[in-house]
Amino acid sequence: MHRIENFKSIIDKYDIIFFDAFGVIKTYQGLVPGIEKTFEYLEAKGKEYYIVTNDASRSPAQLAESYHRNGLTAITPERIVSSGMLTKEYLDLKVLDGIVAYLGTVDSAHYIESTGLHTLPVSEINNTNIDKVNALIFLDDEGFHWQTELNKAVNILRRRTIPVIVANTDRAYPLSINEVSIAIGGIASMIESVVGKQFIRFGKPDSQMFMFAYDLIREYRQISKKQIVMVGDTLQTDILGGNKFGLDTVLVLTGNTLAKDVDARITSTGIMPTYICENAVVNLGGLGF
Amino acid sequence: MHRIENFKSIIDKYDIIFFDAFGVIKTYQGLVPGIEKTFEYLEAKGKEYYIVTNDASRSPAQLAESYHRNGLTAITPERIVSSGMLTKEYLDLKVLDGIVAYLGTVDSAHYIESTGLHTLPVSEINNTNIDKVNALIFLDDEGFHWQTELNKAVNILRRRTIPVIVANTDRAYPLSINEVSIAIGGIASMIESVVGKQFIRFGKPDSQMFMFAYDLIREYRQISKKQIVMVGDTLQTDILGGNKFGLDTVLVLTGNTLAKDVDARITSTGIMPTYICENAVVNLGGLGF
Amino acid sequence: MHRIENFKSIIDKYDIIFFDAFGVIKTYQGLVPGIEKTFEYLEAKGKEYYIVTNDASRSPAQLAESYHRNGLTAITPERIVSSGMLTKEYLDLKVLDGIVAYLGTVDSAHYIESTGLHTLPVSEINNTNIDKVNALIFLDDEGFHWQTELNKAVNILRRRTIPVIVANTDRAYPLSINEVSIAIGGIASMIESVVGKQFIRFGKPDSQMFMFAYDLIREYRQISKKQIVMVGDTLQTDILGGNKFGLDTVLVLTGNTLAKDVDARITSTGIMPTYICENAVVNLGGLGF
Amino acid sequence: MHRIENFKSIIDKYDIIFFDAFGVIKTYQGLVPGIEKTFEYLEAKGKEYYIVTNDASRSPAQLAESYHRNGLTAITPERIVSSGMLTKEYLDLKVLDGIVAYLGTVDSAHYIESTGLHTLPVSEINNTNIDKVNALIFLDDEGFHWQTELNKAVNILRRRTIPVIVANTDRAYPLSINEVSIAIGGIASMIESVVGKQFIRFGKPDSQMFMFAYDLIREYRQISKKQIVMVGDTLQTDILGGNKFGLDTVLVLTGNTLAKDVDARITSTGIMPTYICENAVVNLGGLGF
Repeated sequence: MHRIENFKSIIDKYDIIFFDAFGVIKTYQGLVPGIEKTFEYLEAKGKEYYIVTNDASRSPAQLAESYHRNGLTAITPERIVSSGMLTKEYLDLKVLDGIVAYLGTVDSAHYIESTGLHTLPVSEINNTNIDKVNALIFLDDEGFHWQTELNKAVNILRRRTIPVIVANTDRAYPLSINEVSIAIGGIASMIESVVGKQFIRFGKPDSQMFMFAYDLIREYRQISKKQIVMVGDTLQTDILGGNKFGLDTVLVLTGNTLAKDVDARITSTGIMPTYICENAVVNLGGLGF
Repeated sequence: MHRIENFKSIIDKYDIIFFDAFGVIKTYQGLVPGIEKTFEYLEAKGKEYYIVTNDASRSPAQLAESYHRNGLTAITPERIVSSGMLTKEYLDLKVLDGIVAYLGTVDSAHYIESTGLHTLPVSEINNTNIDKVNALIFLDDEGFHWQTELNKAVNILRRRTIPVIVANTDRAYPLSINEVSIAIGGIASMIESVVGKQFIRFGKPDSQMFMFAYDLIREYRQISKKQIVMVGDTLQTDILGGNKFGLDTVLVLTGNTLAKDVDARITSTGIMPTYICENAVVNLGGLGF
Repeated sequence: MHRIENFKSIIDKYDIIFFDAFGVIKTYQGLVPGIEKTFEYLEAKGKEYYIVTNDASRSPAQLAESYHRNGLTAITPERIVSSGMLTKEYLDLKVLDGIVAYLGTVDSAHYIESTGLHTLPVSEINNTNIDKVNALIFLDDEGFHWQTELNKAVNILRRRTIPVIVANTDRAYPLSINEVSIAIGGIASMIESVVGKQFIRFGKPDSQMFMFAYDLIREYRQISKKQIVMVGDTLQTDILGGNKFGLDTVLVLTGNTLAKDVDARITSTGIMPTYICENAVVNLGGLGF
Repeated sequence: MHRIENFKSIIDKYDIIFFDAFGVIKTYQGLVPGIEKTFEYLEAKGKEYYIVTNDASRSPAQLAESYHRNGLTAITPERIVSSGMLTKEYLDLKVLDGIVAYLGTVDSAHYIESTGLHTLPVSEINNTNIDKVNALIFLDDEGFHWQTELNKAVNILRRRTIPVIVANTDRAYPLSINEVSIAIGGIASMIESVVGKQFIRFGKPDSQMFMFAYDLIREYRQISKKQIVMVGDTLQTDILGGNKFGLDTVLVLTGNTLAKDVDARITSTGIMPTYICENAVVNLGGLGF
């Protein structure tokens, strides 16, 4: 049996905290109750924090705004590192002209659009512009007609040898206590196996996500990986990725991993967090700090 | 370089011929030109033949009728062995009551429906009937709204521990010389990886397809596998499956495998047909027989 | 919670019983205590039985002899269907001349040797005979030097485009309550991924194993799949394979699947046995029959 | 047809060059003829270079020495980034005490040993020390008895829930023009599938390799990814990994990818280098520079 530890006593040992978003700060029901106290505590103690999230559906500004609407003002756009930001960096560095075709909402494309590249939904690719398509991006599971556009994406990739970016590696995401929805990462794997080509994936557990956040910090201060802890609800993404990058890791039980399954899951996957906590809430009791 | 042989000289050596349908007898353009002569020749010589096809979209009677409409009357329903027939046999043997939920057209379900089981499209499963669902079948890529119904299928499988049948293992099928369409086998693999459960697949290269045809013949005559040859256009299904079942195999170049690629494909996959022919057409020249 | 049923009351409903060997009839400690009573009961009742086993390390005669040595005389060679027998049938039908190279013990090769083909261990393949090698067979994890001969097998397959048979699909087998050993099926998968070619696998859950047994019976009597039940200890091989072939299935808890895990395993894999029993022992109490 | 470009004209456009080792600088026959001129040119022009190699069999110092013995003195230990170095960094950060069990040569372990951790070959793990084993590392395919020690590694991992590091992701490496050898990455994948746990892999195409080199440079100068080009012979490791990290890439035809296959390989994998060159040799002709 793995020991459940107190979240506050753990973060007291680190200078910088990386948080996963879904299952840690919020769930399908809204914010995790009391999570605002965690950020108050971090601010009071002068600790830094970043949200490291597999989400390419919106820009950091839009993601931050959604926390604000829910009353969590501590999360500003500068605090967010998303798989969408890695996608944008890839396009900036590697795709210099032509069209970037995408599957996702207009919102998700708007963010990568700002690089100056010409983005078009797959639905608008046709014989007059297909030869200018220089990349295809899987951004979001919403915003397109699956049957029509997925078949079209397959045929674009049979005609054009171009990089394909999967901007969110998750295969599914929760909608309610009983329901999940297929995520764009699952859809992209199907298309990859149909066309037989190798796609580029951004998102945890890949270390490029952690490197991006680590680099943001190193721009203004010196830091060692030993000073950072990653907090997440999913062994295969947050914990495996954090461990591999060399960070200590905290598994919380408010999302994908339930208290009753945690021992069996750790043993069967072989993925071991440094610590396990009920949740990521700092409870200060009546005493203040 | 592999030698290209004459199709007639090969089938002269066997008593029973198994044909794949798509890429051998017909293509997206209609019947393979001259293929009717092959069946005239087989009839004249008293040789038997079966169509062994990964197709669960229609009943054998409907499949045969589509050949008749194209002028090929030699193919009667009794000559057809489809992955849909194996699905039907499975349901007859193993699912005794309740609802069979399906993804596919009404036509595809009509065929398995005749078993007396209650079939319902996934779109009609809801809280009042979900607990009676005793199997889920992937029949065809047409006939349902992908986004809505695939998400619904995932959530049915999270609630019910039931057998899931994939009635066609193909991942894609050709629409024209340049275009393919995602097949139900590809869709089913995505759902399988999202839910993490193991599905049951019927269709070549699985030997159960060949066994079904072999059993049909043995009901009325004695036969050895040495007297049968399998003719197909796809190394990974027709040729691998035929070989594994112990049959000699003919690869034809009118479908998935192009003449220019055949040597590289055989070497890279390690799947070796007994013979290679341009097509499955018996050319008798001016001489008759 | 799945219900645990009485084994005798189940087999009373069927005419023919298929048994897996390891984990059902015997374990690493010898025969399952009391299992001889099951076979006495079957004989008394005139029911037939077959052992359907992923084992290519010895011939049916040698396998039967090992039961006799342990005091179980009911299992004669004619009652055994092994993946080695399917390998032998494949070679008889499809490999007509040349050398069959193998990895395994001399005993395992001796059995396939009797087909008249020339078998040679991989260690004896060299530049003078490599061009006569017409098949490569993975028989057993014992009997060869892994590092030397596995590297040699890879290089034979880079030079020769030949069928490769994996005569036992298991990835591991138990040695004691705490220890397992890597099986030839796991080794073969590594070689397959290194050479990138597609191997032919015989063994449960593949239906060809069940067909072979089913055909043996049909040679002397009429039988329906409804009259047969498959008894096994492993969901992914015995139960999945039996279900797919259309048989009713019994999961026993004396081998791979422990009583404490059975509910979680069924739910997580989606593989559902028709029945679950403690073991395959018929306990008649003091009453006789 | 992809255009073959002049290597010198390409590197003239970049400030820093990353080279793969095997297939670019050396082959199984020794150094690539003329490769020393490339490094003379780089030194003369004041360009920097790093060797980025999937090799955990020796320390950077030992790797550099092997170049020196072959007459290539330009490659010093500081110029080498190996997957072994990432393994060492992981152990420094994440494994604080206990025993690190390994599969590989004593030389390969000696390098990670210097971290102060207690390393022991798998062969020396037994009941007295197994509970102190806190990590298992796959270092090299040489130096251990495969059958005995691989089975032992499986059983260690059944008993201990510990991180498993694969310090070289390659599945095979060339021995001569016709022969390859199974690499430790292929062996590790077999063990991973037998035990069903998730291993941590260091080595191209994973971006952590590129980050490590990038970080080394940033310690002493400012640099943008646009100033770096990665030179490699393998699409799936060097080119895919370089592209994903945001670097421009050069495919050379002196190793894994042959000139006759290059177009087919790029189309079938969808992995596109920025440039293709015959080799990584700078030919200055009679003119000097």
